Amino acid sequence: MRELLDAVASGEVSPAEAEARLAGYATTDAGRFDAAREQRRGVPEAVYAEGKTAEEVVDMLLAALETTGRGIATRVSDEQVAAVREALDDAGLDADVRWHERSDVLVIHGPEYEPPDVDATVRVVTGGTVDRGPAGEARAIAVEMGATVEMVEDVGVAGIVRLLDRLDELREADVLVVAAGREGALPTVVAGLVDTPVIGLPTASGYGHGGDGEAALAGMLQSCTVLSTVNVDAGFVAGAQAGLIARAIDDNT
Amino acid sequence: MRELLDAVASGEVSPAEAEARLAGYATTDAGRFDAAREQRRGVPEAVYAEGKTAEEVVDMLLAALETTGRGIATRVSDEQVAAVREALDDAGLDADVRWHERSDVLVIHGPEYEPPDVDATVRVVTGGTVDRGPAGEARAIAVEMGATVEMVEDVGVAGIVRLLDRLDELREADVLVVAAGREGALPTVVAGLVDTPVIGLPTASGYGHGGDGEAALAGMLQSCTVLSTVNVDAGFVAGAQAGLIARAIDDNT
Amino acid sequence: MRELLDAVASGEVSPAEAEARLAGYATTDAGRFDAAREQRRGVPEAVYAEGKTAEEVVDMLLAALETTGRGIATRVSDEQVAAVREALDDAGLDADVRWHERSDVLVIHGPEYEPPDVDATVRVVTGGTVDRGPAGEARAIAVEMGATVEMVEDVGVAGIVRLLDRLDELREADVLVVAAGREGALPTVVAGLVDTPVIGLPTASGYGHGGDGEAALAGMLQSCTVLSTVNVDAGFVAGAQAGLIARAIDDNT
Amino acid sequence: MRELLDAVASGEVSPAEAEARLAGYATTDAGRFDAAREQRRGVPEAVYAEGKTAEEVVDMLLAALETTGRGIATRVSDEQVAAVREALDDAGLDADVRWHERSDVLVIHGPEYEPPDVDATVRVVTGGTVDRGPAGEARAIAVEMGATVEMVEDVGVAGIVRLLDRLDELREADVLVVAAGREGALPTVVAGLVDTPVIGLPTASGYGHGGDGEAALAGMLQSCTVLSTVNVDAGFVAGAQAGLIARAIDDNT
Amino acid sequence: MRELLDAVASGEVSPAEAEARLAGYATTDAGRFDAAREQRRGVPEAVYAEGKTAEEVVDMLLAALETTGRGIATRVSDEQVAAVREALDDAGLDADVRWHERSDVLVIHGPEYEPPDVDATVRVVTGGTVDRGPAGEARAIAVEMGATVEMVEDVGVAGIVRLLDRLDELREADVLVVAAGREGALPTVVAGLVDTPVIGLPTASGYGHGGDGEAALAGMLQSCTVLSTVNVDAGFVAGAQAGLIARAIDDNT
Amino acid sequence: MRELLDAVASGEVSPAEAEARLAGYATTDAGRFDAAREQRRGVPEAVYAEGKTAEEVVDMLLAALETTGRGIATRVSDEQVAAVREALDDAGLDADVRWHERSDVLVIHGPEYEPPDVDATVRVVTGGTVDRGPAGEARAIAVEMGATVEMVEDVGVAGIVRLLDRLDELREADVLVVAAGREGALPTVVAGLVDTPVIGLPTASGYGHGGDGEAALAGMLQSCTVLSTVNVDAGFVAGAQAGLIARAIDDNT
Amino acid sequence: MRELLDAVASGEVSPAEAEARLAGYATTDAGRFDAAREQRRGVPEAVYAEGKTAEEVVDMLLAALETTGRGIATRVSDEQVAAVREALDDAGLDADVRWHERSDVLVIHGPEYEPPDVDATVRVVTGGTVDRGPAGEARAIAVEMGATVEMVEDVGVAGIVRLLDRLDELREADVLVVAAGREGALPTVVAGLVDTPVIGLPTASGYGHGGDGEAALAGMLQSCTVLSTVNVDAGFVAGAQAGLIARAIDDNT
Amino acid sequence: MRELLDAVASGEVSPAEAEARLAGYATTDAGRFDAAREQRRGVPEAVYAEGKTAEEVVDMLLAALETTGRGIATRVSDEQVAAVREALDDAGLDADVRWHERSDVLVIHGPEYEPPDVDATVRVVTGGTVDRGPAGEARAIAVEMGATVEMVEDVGVAGIVRLLDRLDELREADVLVVAAGREGALPTVVAGLVDTPVIGLPTASGYGHGGDGEAALAGMLQSCTVLSTVNVDAGFVAGAQAGLIARAIDDNT
Repeated sequence: MRELLDAVASGEVSPAEAEARLAGYATTDAGRFDAAREQRRGVPEAVYAEGKTAEEVVDMLLAALETTGRGIATRVSDEQVAAVREALDDAGLDADVRWHERSDVLVIHGPEYEPPDVDATVRVVTGGTVDRGPAGEARAIAVEMGATVEMVEDVGVAGIVRLLDRLDELREADVLVVAAGREGALPTVVAGLVDTPVIGLPTASGYGHGGDGEAALAGMLQSCTVLSTVNVDAGFVAGAQAGLIARAIDDNT
Repeated sequence: MRELLDAVASGEVSPAEAEARLAGYATTDAGRFDAAREQRRGVPEAVYAEGKTAEEVVDMLLAALETTGRGIATRVSDEQVAAVREALDDAGLDADVRWHERSDVLVIHGPEYEPPDVDATVRVVTGGTVDRGPAGEARAIAVEMGATVEMVEDVGVAGIVRLLDRLDELREADVLVVAAGREGALPTVVAGLVDTPVIGLPTASGYGHGGDGEAALAGMLQSCTVLSTVNVDAGFVAGAQAGLIARAIDDNT
Repeated sequence: MRELLDAVASGEVSPAEAEARLAGYATTDAGRFDAAREQRRGVPEAVYAEGKTAEEVVDMLLAALETTGRGIATRVSDEQVAAVREALDDAGLDADVRWHERSDVLVIHGPEYEPPDVDATVRVVTGGTVDRGPAGEARAIAVEMGATVEMVEDVGVAGIVRLLDRLDELREADVLVVAAGREGALPTVVAGLVDTPVIGLPTASGYGHGGDGEAALAGMLQSCTVLSTVNVDAGFVAGAQAGLIARAIDDNT
Repeated sequence: MRELLDAVASGEVSPAEAEARLAGYATTDAGRFDAAREQRRGVPEAVYAEGKTAEEVVDMLLAALETTGRGIATRVSDEQVAAVREALDDAGLDADVRWHERSDVLVIHGPEYEPPDVDATVRVVTGGTVDRGPAGEARAIAVEMGATVEMVEDVGVAGIVRLLDRLDELREADVLVVAAGREGALPTVVAGLVDTPVIGLPTASGYGHGGDGEAALAGMLQSCTVLSTVNVDAGFVAGAQAGLIARAIDDNT
Repeated sequence: MRELLDAVASGEVSPAEAEARLAGYATTDAGRFDAAREQRRGVPEAVYAEGKTAEEVVDMLLAALETTGRGIATRVSDEQVAAVREALDDAGLDADVRWHERSDVLVIHGPEYEPPDVDATVRVVTGGTVDRGPAGEARAIAVEMGATVEMVEDVGVAGIVRLLDRLDELREADVLVVAAGREGALPTVVAGLVDTPVIGLPTASGYGHGGDGEAALAGMLQSCTVLSTVNVDAGFVAGAQAGLIARAIDDNT
Repeated sequence: MRELLDAVASGEVSPAEAEARLAGYATTDAGRFDAAREQRRGVPEAVYAEGKTAEEVVDMLLAALETTGRGIATRVSDEQVAAVREALDDAGLDADVRWHERSDVLVIHGPEYEPPDVDATVRVVTGGTVDRGPAGEARAIAVEMGATVEMVEDVGVAGIVRLLDRLDELREADVLVVAAGREGALPTVVAGLVDTPVIGLPTASGYGHGGDGEAALAGMLQSCTVLSTVNVDAGFVAGAQAGLIARAIDDNT
Repeated sequence: MRELLDAVASGEVSPAEAEARLAGYATTDAGRFDAAREQRRGVPEAVYAEGKTAEEVVDMLLAALETTGRGIATRVSDEQVAAVREALDDAGLDADVRWHERSDVLVIHGPEYEPPDVDATVRVVTGGTVDRGPAGEARAIAVEMGATVEMVEDVGVAGIVRLLDRLDELREADVLVVAAGREGALPTVVAGLVDTPVIGLPTASGYGHGGDGEAALAGMLQSCTVLSTVNVDAGFVAGAQAGLIARAIDDNT
Repeated sequence: MRELLDAVASGEVSPAEAEARLAGYATTDAGRFDAAREQRRGVPEAVYAEGKTAEEVVDMLLAALETTGRGIATRVSDEQVAAVREALDDAGLDADVRWHERSDVLVIHGPEYEPPDVDATVRVVTGGTVDRGPAGEARAIAVEMGATVEMVEDVGVAGIVRLLDRLDELREADVLVVAAGREGALPTVVAGLVDTPVIGLPTASGYGHGGDGEAALAGMLQSCTVLSTVNVDAGFVAGAQAGLIARAIDDNT
């Protein structure tokens, strides 16, 4: 610890990073950044941007970059993205910024960040166009956790042939995240065809009774096959759970 | 009308039947029997036995037999069935009594009853054993309306191959009633494969969130294919709607 | 197949149409267009425009026109309509564009499109002004499926006489779609008076407890007559189900 | 007050009646009986028997008889009725006991009880057999409040003619209580045909989605005519509200 | 009838009015105006303006004025009010226009309109400021039905003394409409203190669980006193029901 | 610790008590008894008997007696009480057993148990007879935590005078638990009259919409006064929270 | 009273203050201000600004200042704050204005206002950034009631160590308000670790099923420890209840 | 296939087993047994016994034994167990029968059955006694899928120390199933402490609002950590999902 404090004194290590190393988190005006999360939990901490000001998102992402070399934010608005880009410019940080527009996910890699690499494949399956947002969120997180991730899109159950055509791809994956809205039957049909873990991701499509993803969620919970589920539009959770399973598979190799 | 009253006076026609012919219904202690329903509506009147005493069920079925030559009751208990059989014996009525035990449907044909005959086929499809009760109710009513009815059972979506194996049978039908509980995805998958009207019949299976058929109902209402639905366990309604469509097809022949 | 590929090579057949003929669907940036749906399913594929960008709607409608000669979109906004018109102009396509403003339905017929013709009548009944949107959606789809469609409007149960005055019209139809909001009693009353299939279409009117069409939907599901129902505001589904029944009647002629 | 206490001392007036006259209520082991309710509120106090022991029901009915000359209990079981009869015999009370079995209402008039007489007519309308329980509860209370009460039964909307046949009866009443289960449309249809106050009484019939009277209640609240409603199966409240309106009409005569 | 047609031919009677006299309603582009409602039903027809265009509201109000001498609209926006004023100016109609801004109710009396006069008093009671909108809607309708209407405002149960101070006013009324949001306890407390009919009017105040008036509605339905209720914010229904009771009282005088 | 183990070896201290002292809990076949709860938490551990076998309840209560000198169980059935009495007899334990039958609470004091004594008063208020069960549970726990507890019963808001009569008693208490079912308005009215903390305890009375205590709970959460609430029928929680407040008051003395 | 009226006549006391002293409330155009609330109830009256115009908020706050020397408003918008500041300037009032922007609370102390001082500590605990709004509302009210209030922020259960690190702070407080959204587990974990009263404050964070604070509320009501709760986002109620407990503790000192 | 049929002809292979090998399922009177499920899906087929007759359970378990060498049934009643034992005796089958009474799971291994062996550890964690049923169901299935399974019981969050004491055990597992009722916070706390996949299993404990496991389910879906969940009491699904993950880990070894 003395060493660390010396490094702080000499400016080699920033106070934020020192705090993160000692206490596990970095304190910013916008709240604490749980810098130790990835180590303790296997899942990188992400900033949930909805309901935060652009300034708060900037603060927390900078703290993330400073302490872990990477920043991830979900449910980010265009304004927030612009503010982050400007802040990075101002700070003269040579970071790699990826903005997944359809999924509102922002990922920033600092110049020295080395991404993890996990030897396992996650496939993210969607029923239709409307599921792309949450599915993309799931993909982005699983990628950040080091898994190989591929998409199998537009294979909704209304035309079951589209799905059967791609059965081999589904069976090759180590883990599947299956996103579906409306009646949410896709994960059930998929899970009946593969022998790998399936995570259902209900999406907030549909209208009228059972809309906003409630029918899809209830259908996945009632599934007569084996699958576990996450909340409506919880792409981050589905992707991270797939990432954890991929990690567990990889660890055992 | 004078003729009818003469017939009542002479005992040729019972007062109940005369009332039914004149007013459209027969009055019993247990309530009115809507004897004109089949003619006006195309659907035979059925006695909903749940919550009625055995005596009331007997009263209304006898009125049905007397005025229309046939009696149908749904949700009938063993005690009620016994009471009806006893009453028929006491009355010396030479009726044909069919008791669909799994579906709790009782159908009685008087000695001179001539069933309708409709040239159209209804197929009733089930996902699993648990759907047999409501599916049987649907079948019984469609049969009574004169349609040819066949069952396609145990083809739930958890093992989609079971369903695809029987696709030809599904495609041959004029109308399909598809019963499913749990996540209720079967009607959606079926409706994506055939070009005939599909009526979804959610059944009250399942447990926990979305149990009692609520997930199945919501899923059918949210279906991304084209189908109409009925209430949970409403086998009578599904079967009668299929019967009406069958009749419409037949009328046009 | 060789022939088709030759035709593609020579430019006679577009790649999209060739893909549609071979695989059943055409792939666009905005997702897949299920070109084979009408043949397989009897119901034309329609683009659900809500939540799509104008560009995506344009892409999919052009694919539809190219592969089936017709494009249908529901829940279309003014902006999307304008974009489609512009794209058609840019493409120099001499198409017949019909915009059902009150129902937000857009129908485009290519120059050589020949609409189907089904010998059966669908009547679409409404309780009040507020039901016109979903009812119009139902009408547009049933028309596109070839049925003769007529409206019976403003016959809500609060003034039952308005309904009884038009009983003959109701009884002449082969199939009825009955749209109603608030307490949703109209389909029940209508279904008690006719001997043809009735499809209830609950609309999202009303306020407070049971608002957003939930009371109307629950009432139709609980109806003590025989009718099947669709989700709240699901005009497309109701109209297409009526179209399928009309087709079934016609096929049998 | 001195006079009253003298009367208690001499045994002319019981302590319970004295307490009721002074404080407005009589205290029993089973709780307080609100003896002043009828005077203050216009509605007689009734014992809600469900969840009480037979002993408690007896206690409170005896207190009612002693202090107001009359006892009313709702939702009474057979065992409770038997216990009350026995207690009256034991006490040698020459009371007039009426047990409305179908509605589980028990009414006892002491030998000197003089019922109120209100010059106004309440009609209680039912859709079907299943509504008779709550409707009978409404009738019993309105009768006890002095109104002339008549029943119009079995006029459900599935066969609208049955209702139209009896329109004159409905129009003659001063107030209408309309009981209906399932989709609960009857009060709406009735209220569209009369110019008197209509009170909707949803009953707990039906099954599946919207069962237990919830669809009926929601439908009455959403009614596009004018009516007020009470809770599911709240026959007492509907009948008492009708009684209060009848009283108001009568007072003004 | 001949006479009427002659009058139409001579221009003395407008076609709309003639249609209204013969058929009971006037047909406009915006739908039918139920001109006979007040006579048949005792309640004036009102235009529910929400979801209608300004043009439609104008059309229907002009039809109302033409056929009944009066127009009433509820849930009217500022734009709609302006459009109506302009239309009246354009038509040179010398009408009396009253705009109840807080309640969004618009009432127009034609120059020869003679309002009804009913000898009975309705008091509209509110718990707090937030209830004034629906309460004002109730008042406006009851006034149009001819009742004497007075307000008793800001007497919520959180400070019960405010209510007790005004008990005499409450007891003098013939009918009470009691509007309350949040926990909706006010109608229960009031109904325990008066011997006249009380109509509960839940208002859509409150937040979190039970917000949007659902807690208030449920509380009124569960009330342990006697009251009937209407839907959340259904000021029109509450006021019209009070008006019908006032009429019934007056008729009997 | 050595000392304790010596005491176990010599039989002075039972193994269970030793475990409880060391680990904070005693392990039984039926699960762990959290012996340290009262010290850590201020609230005595109680056995929730519903869903446990009589044997399990006996096991855990004996462990409680052995380690803390007292046993408390809630939601106890008659069979379980009998089994506990028998076990105490078999064990020859001279314990003081109190069975609160109406509230299904069982309290056992070992011969050397010294109850806590807190100098603060809790008043438990009920709306009616039906609230006595949960209210009694609250009382029993608050008593066991050492508070002085008094009941104010049958003061429901339907007759507000009953409540106002006892205002002084309410104002004298340090903390109030107010139990109410149906519309649950009593805590709101009480909290508007006193300047002490009020804890609302909704009870599962009522029927139809908002029954099972849901309306009461929602009403307390929406209360326009200041009060906190507990779950429906959570008498233990309400009483223990009152006990904690009483303790806090006492500590400060 | 004569004295007071003399003072009014002489201008020493304003009419509003005089009314407040006599009747307990001050009447403004915007409704009544319950000036006696703090004395009667221990909780200062606060203006709930949502849904009120800026003018109404100004009116009521000025009445508050005039009659009690202090004004508090919750859920205040920027526009309303500006209007209040302007009004204070116009009135030349030398008041101390504190605007808690994150919590939308406005507190104004008149020049002679002497705040209460209560010798007890309230700690307000939050799970994350999103809970700061309601938590700040709670803090502001508890401060106004005289308690010492401290914040313990960002200690959500996802990283339990953050919470355990601050256990001593939690244990030192006399009362705890624990704000948490999402799954709302924090109050349960905290209440298992301290022996003081805990008030759960669910916040409207989260999305999908159980969003808007419903999961957090349900979780707190189901807590297997002892805590009472308030409605979602009801920071005022939680803070005031904590303030009342603090007062009770202080009174007893 | 010829070989197989020869074997059937010679009696070496039963018709059921032959059907299972060819079609993937064995047909019984009670429905089809999906014998190929384990191979296709990785999860053994289990008979859901609830709602089946003892005879049907016997039929399907015998088919399971005959075709796969093993039979598993969940939610089995005592009567059904007895019937199965009797049937096995009658058939003279020397099978190993394990009856997990608390979890209602029945597992039968035929004499030659060789269980799978997977090199991965599943830990099943429970909050309290009440969770043992579903947790035991999860354990039984995971064991049948070959995983090493261990229990960590009674570590509910109300006493967080109990959980922290066993952190090492939790961290050593490859997959965790965490069962919790009431507020369901345990999976969230656990998932914040380990870096392996966590599957939440909500159990149907609790009462009042959010009872029957609904609060627990909603809390797990809203969890601010990463976990996936299954339906309330879906022990089979949770255990099988854990088994699939264990298999995936093992496959990769």
